[in-house]
Amino acid sequence: MGHMPEIHYNADGLVPAIAQDEDTREVLMLAWMNEEALRRTLATGKATYWSRSRQEYWVKGETSGHHQAVVDAALDCDGDAILLTVRQTGAACHTGNRTCFFTDLTAQDLT
Amino acid sequence: MGHMPEIHYNADGLVPAIAQDEDTREVLMLAWMNEEALRRTLATGKATYWSRSRQEYWVKGETSGHHQAVVDAALDCDGDAILLTVRQTGAACHTGNRTCFFTDLTAQDLT
Repeated sequence: MGHMPEIHYNADGLVPAIAQDEDTREVLMLAWMNEEALRRTLATGKATYWSRSRQEYWVKGETSGHHQAVVDAALDCDGDAILLTVRQTGAACHTGNRTCFFTDLTAQDLT
Repeated sequence: MGHMPEIHYNADGLVPAIAQDEDTREVLMLAWMNEEALRRTLATGKATYWSRSRQEYWVKGETSGHHQAVVDAALDCDGDAILLTVRQTGAACHTGNRTCFFTDLTAQDLT
């Protein structure tokens, strides 16, 4: 057995997972995984998150058809964030935007 | 006054912030910000996080010299994650790796 990367889940048993488009390199979204969601993601190659609002597993695209095929998964240096490289079908965002990060933030937004 | 994006901080008053390299498009790291860290980031153009381990503000590169100049900041659709586009000086990771996401994860790592 080789060295197992140690994953540090938060108090709710979750770790943030970033999905990045393999082709465009856009950061598409950030969602959350528990250990079982991560296990399913790696076993099936379909990005599977834990929905904090619905408190259930959420296979991305299961209802929308906008699947994320996982090409690669990486853990960060302190084991508390995951980066998925994905092939995104359609829009990643439920709003229909390709990425969830479509709202610009400026200093004026905080004053 | 226009519409202010609403930012949803977690129970600890924090929001995850992803840093992506403007040139290489690599996802460099994920760290955390409270409202003041975000305010400082947007006001100064220097990525400033809240260190959960040290419980203090952390201007990226202040000790290492590996600054992140913030080119763009975006909020996600549900207001609970931030994406920074940065010009990274040197390595983003304290290990000397360019990105913190250098550990491959496979299904075998969870069995």
